[in-house]
Amino acid sequence: MIDLNRIGALVAERREGHCLPQGLYNGAEAFEFDMTAIYGRSWIMIGFECELPKPGSYLSEMIGTWPILIVRGRDGEIRAFHNSCRHRGSILCQPGSGTAPKIVCPYHRWTYDLDGSLFAAMRMGEDFDKAEHGLRQLHLRQVSGALFVCFAEEPPAFDDFAEKLEVYLGPQRMENAKLAHHSVISESANWKLVMENGRECYHCAIGHPELARTFPVGVKKHFDADGDDRLLAFLNTMTEHDLASEAIEGSWWQLARFALNPDVVTLSMTGQHVVGKLMCDHNDGYVGSMRLAIDPHCFMHATADHVFIFSAMPVSPTETHVFGKWYVHKDAVEGVDYDVESLIELWTRTNLQDKELAENNQRGVNSPGFVPGPYSAEAESLALRFTDWYCDTAQAYLAHVA
Amino acid sequence: MIDLNRIGALVAERREGHCLPQGLYNGAEAFEFDMTAIYGRSWIMIGFECELPKPGSYLSEMIGTWPILIVRGRDGEIRAFHNSCRHRGSILCQPGSGTAPKIVCPYHRWTYDLDGSLFAAMRMGEDFDKAEHGLRQLHLRQVSGALFVCFAEEPPAFDDFAEKLEVYLGPQRMENAKLAHHSVISESANWKLVMENGRECYHCAIGHPELARTFPVGVKKHFDADGDDRLLAFLNTMTEHDLASEAIEGSWWQLARFALNPDVVTLSMTGQHVVGKLMCDHNDGYVGSMRLAIDPHCFMHATADHVFIFSAMPVSPTETHVFGKWYVHKDAVEGVDYDVESLIELWTRTNLQDKELAENNQRGVNSPGFVPGPYSAEAESLALRFTDWYCDTAQAYLAHVA
Amino acid sequence: MIDLNRIGALVAERREGHCLPQGLYNGAEAFEFDMTAIYGRSWIMIGFECELPKPGSYLSEMIGTWPILIVRGRDGEIRAFHNSCRHRGSILCQPGSGTAPKIVCPYHRWTYDLDGSLFAAMRMGEDFDKAEHGLRQLHLRQVSGALFVCFAEEPPAFDDFAEKLEVYLGPQRMENAKLAHHSVISESANWKLVMENGRECYHCAIGHPELARTFPVGVKKHFDADGDDRLLAFLNTMTEHDLASEAIEGSWWQLARFALNPDVVTLSMTGQHVVGKLMCDHNDGYVGSMRLAIDPHCFMHATADHVFIFSAMPVSPTETHVFGKWYVHKDAVEGVDYDVESLIELWTRTNLQDKELAENNQRGVNSPGFVPGPYSAEAESLALRFTDWYCDTAQAYLAHVA
Repeated sequence: MIDLNRIGALVAERREGHCLPQGLYNGAEAFEFDMTAIYGRSWIMIGFECELPKPGSYLSEMIGTWPILIVRGRDGEIRAFHNSCRHRGSILCQPGSGTAPKIVCPYHRWTYDLDGSLFAAMRMGEDFDKAEHGLRQLHLRQVSGALFVCFAEEPPAFDDFAEKLEVYLGPQRMENAKLAHHSVISESANWKLVMENGRECYHCAIGHPELARTFPVGVKKHFDADGDDRLLAFLNTMTEHDLASEAIEGSWWQLARFALNPDVVTLSMTGQHVVGKLMCDHNDGYVGSMRLAIDPHCFMHATADHVFIFSAMPVSPTETHVFGKWYVHKDAVEGVDYDVESLIELWTRTNLQDKELAENNQRGVNSPGFVPGPYSAEAESLALRFTDWYCDTAQAYLAHVA
Repeated sequence: MIDLNRIGALVAERREGHCLPQGLYNGAEAFEFDMTAIYGRSWIMIGFECELPKPGSYLSEMIGTWPILIVRGRDGEIRAFHNSCRHRGSILCQPGSGTAPKIVCPYHRWTYDLDGSLFAAMRMGEDFDKAEHGLRQLHLRQVSGALFVCFAEEPPAFDDFAEKLEVYLGPQRMENAKLAHHSVISESANWKLVMENGRECYHCAIGHPELARTFPVGVKKHFDADGDDRLLAFLNTMTEHDLASEAIEGSWWQLARFALNPDVVTLSMTGQHVVGKLMCDHNDGYVGSMRLAIDPHCFMHATADHVFIFSAMPVSPTETHVFGKWYVHKDAVEGVDYDVESLIELWTRTNLQDKELAENNQRGVNSPGFVPGPYSAEAESLALRFTDWYCDTAQAYLAHVA
Repeated sequence: MIDLNRIGALVAERREGHCLPQGLYNGAEAFEFDMTAIYGRSWIMIGFECELPKPGSYLSEMIGTWPILIVRGRDGEIRAFHNSCRHRGSILCQPGSGTAPKIVCPYHRWTYDLDGSLFAAMRMGEDFDKAEHGLRQLHLRQVSGALFVCFAEEPPAFDDFAEKLEVYLGPQRMENAKLAHHSVISESANWKLVMENGRECYHCAIGHPELARTFPVGVKKHFDADGDDRLLAFLNTMTEHDLASEAIEGSWWQLARFALNPDVVTLSMTGQHVVGKLMCDHNDGYVGSMRLAIDPHCFMHATADHVFIFSAMPVSPTETHVFGKWYVHKDAVEGVDYDVESLIELWTRTNLQDKELAENNQRGVNSPGFVPGPYSAEAESLALRFTDWYCDTAQAYLAHVA
């Protein structure tokens, strides 16, 4: 049971430009609040349509502690549902992906059509109304192949974001993509510590020696060129090749295409392409990285040869599951055009380094001597932006229910 | 600390004919409430007298998170105690069974007689009154060899049940039984989901292919013949052999003897007796199964050759221990008249299948999209009866403390 | 969130001469309260200066769930800090010990001088005031080489204790000591059950056969001679050799030197010295044991050849970490003058026996039938003293915040 007054007091206590009060990083109430007020009311990026290649394809995912199901119908449409049978609540599909002609509950064989309507339920008697027992649907939006869901009855505005994302992501041609690998890491840290970590590169030069070879870890502020000649030249080239690059943002999202380090064409251990067949061949694949960030949970990097998504899911006040997905061109052949190990090595190493940093962060945040400190305006502006967004969203929820 | 108003609101929210609201299936408060209001005030079936063959025999059991001790005294009487020393509270006997001339606390050697009175406590001084420090006793009742305990100061009425049970269970001659095997399975599901699962066979035809060979999984309602000729003939035969069969019930118990599938004489993998020496040899061992169900935690099946008890014990809001006990005729010799593996295989497989079903159920019940659905009147009447009993008992407790 | 009224009610409910009410032994609120009101406001013994041999030496320790850092500065002074970076709160040093020229946060390389002042923080901008972001210091006191810290702004009075400890501990010459071994045991029991166990030897004769060979397990009351000729003779001899022996105490500490069993010179498996080089060679090393006890968490035994410290740290309502440290003369050479196995065997066995006793205690205390029982005035006076101190300290805190 959440005492919203206590949450409100913690949010109010937060000092401008500083990270959050302790109770928001390790409290049981804050965890419950975050599921309801943050994950329960935001657009969540799930992945891409290519993961649901045909009617009957489904994805079963956990949004924090909440199971959902995404299904491509017989009509080709993709829909999202609560993964909970309308009979006695069992999950319908185990987390993972698959294909099925109908959705059949493993418990009592209640059977749903791919559009979520209840097709059959044995022995339920004359009075039973199937029409009242279809799967409960979530909002789902699709943009350039990307899938977004929202639990809220009235989701945040989406159209402006959709329009912008289409411009930035379109050239990646995700309709030609396939999922090459996925992974999950369990981190003993609050999800907000995991996300703040993922929103700044103040720690990267030392913390991520491999990433620092390709990623501009000294970047200032918001992935903008900031007067740097090389970066300005990159932006001009991108414009010539019809690739949107300007760093833009809405309240809960950011988009930019930015230059990688000199002589580097992708985010990999070597800086060279790890997939022979390119997804985006503009400018011969010298296209930097197209970055998408979505609050509360996600960032994505799309380079010429592959796409990586990072998604943080709260599991308990001090435990977070980090899901990673790697996409390549659907015609790239494993073992010929790419091998999974080279594809995933950079982000796998980086994520494991971040796990250690986030867990150290949690241990210290638990100290009674913890005082929220100031972010570096230059090096942590996006982490600050994240916690500002978190506080704004929390306050909007508190005002909404008051 | 339980907020009884919140529990009361959840119980009140429950819709007739439907399973329970989410908060009763995964809340920390509901768990605490259930220990106090349900397990703390109901009759709990422990096992049989044969497990305490002589003076000094004891059983140390966990009722949820609560340790109890059942001891046969020097006078032959069986008594139940809190398994907690009156000095500093240590448990006296580790969970399991054994024999001891006296009950000696492993901590400071306070020594109790088998009737629970304090026999000796070293170095406690002149003022110490041993008479005030005997073990605290629980209510215990014995019927046809079966043992029932209750924590409540004023237990639910028992006599009518005792009278009926004697009629149904007597012919099993449990005074000639011995415990052949016991087991425990840990399930990541609320105890009520475990019990609802155990109270219906709507899921059995598909979920339990082995059980379905012998058990009438298509049974309607309350183990009654419902006009079926074979079943009616079975009931007549049982009556001829002085075996009570009618399905009867009290508020917290049910009794029935029902026909197994055609050509089947017991609940085993093959449908054939798995113990050479029969416990109940009426009608040459063609006696179906005598079923006893006790709310909140237990069901029992007594066939001609063996008896199986299932008992669900809450451990946390979403964790339950399922204890199984198998009894055979005391003169049956292991390796000659039976082997343990054949004896236990059917229920072991069935329980492990149910564990998976209950855990899937819990995962889906945690969904914010979970809506309690309707039971099948035909196929889940006993699951409905269980949740109805749960709500009635909860409300009675709430009224009692108000 | 602690409801102090509920804690106050539990403390008020406690019956004189008896152990504590159940809720103080297994409640989540009581755990939180104990960290804040007990560990957060008491002097905690950490170890000895010899563990910080030179400038830059540090100890990183957990006080319950709270990380602290103890550092010897360039000026030779030892200081204690919260182990939490003033930037985003990461711990600075992993639990353990080491040496560093400066304290560098592993996250963003904020760098602190050994006196805790912030030396450098990259990219923090013009407005950033380093002077405001030094490490937060804890109270630290040193007595005869022993280190004590306190989280409270206004710690309990210390000077009287310091003066007495110097007299009792001085002859052990801890300035010549070194840490020979340290260990940690995780016990599934509330820290107060662990401490009560460590404050009485009522259970030792049976529970600790090895300890009972050397330790006077039948000792009455407060380590005083109580008219026993041998013990009186021991005290006289100690006085002749300028070793303080009388059992004395303050509100939160006790000091005494007491005779070991006949023909025994140290607390070891054999009763013979396990370190060739003595720390205290008065009376040829026949000096009994100098015992120090500190509430809430610690006891120490200093024999002629080595020193053992026991320290209990709460981790959850029913989990406690027991830290052990063994010290020997710094010139004692491992493998020549002592071997670690012989040094640690007695207390390691004893602590593991106590772990089992404390865990049994917890299991039984969880029983709804648990009633706090009376301590033996003769054999458990120090356990009673501990729970009395606990209740007094709890009540003082409740009065303080009221």
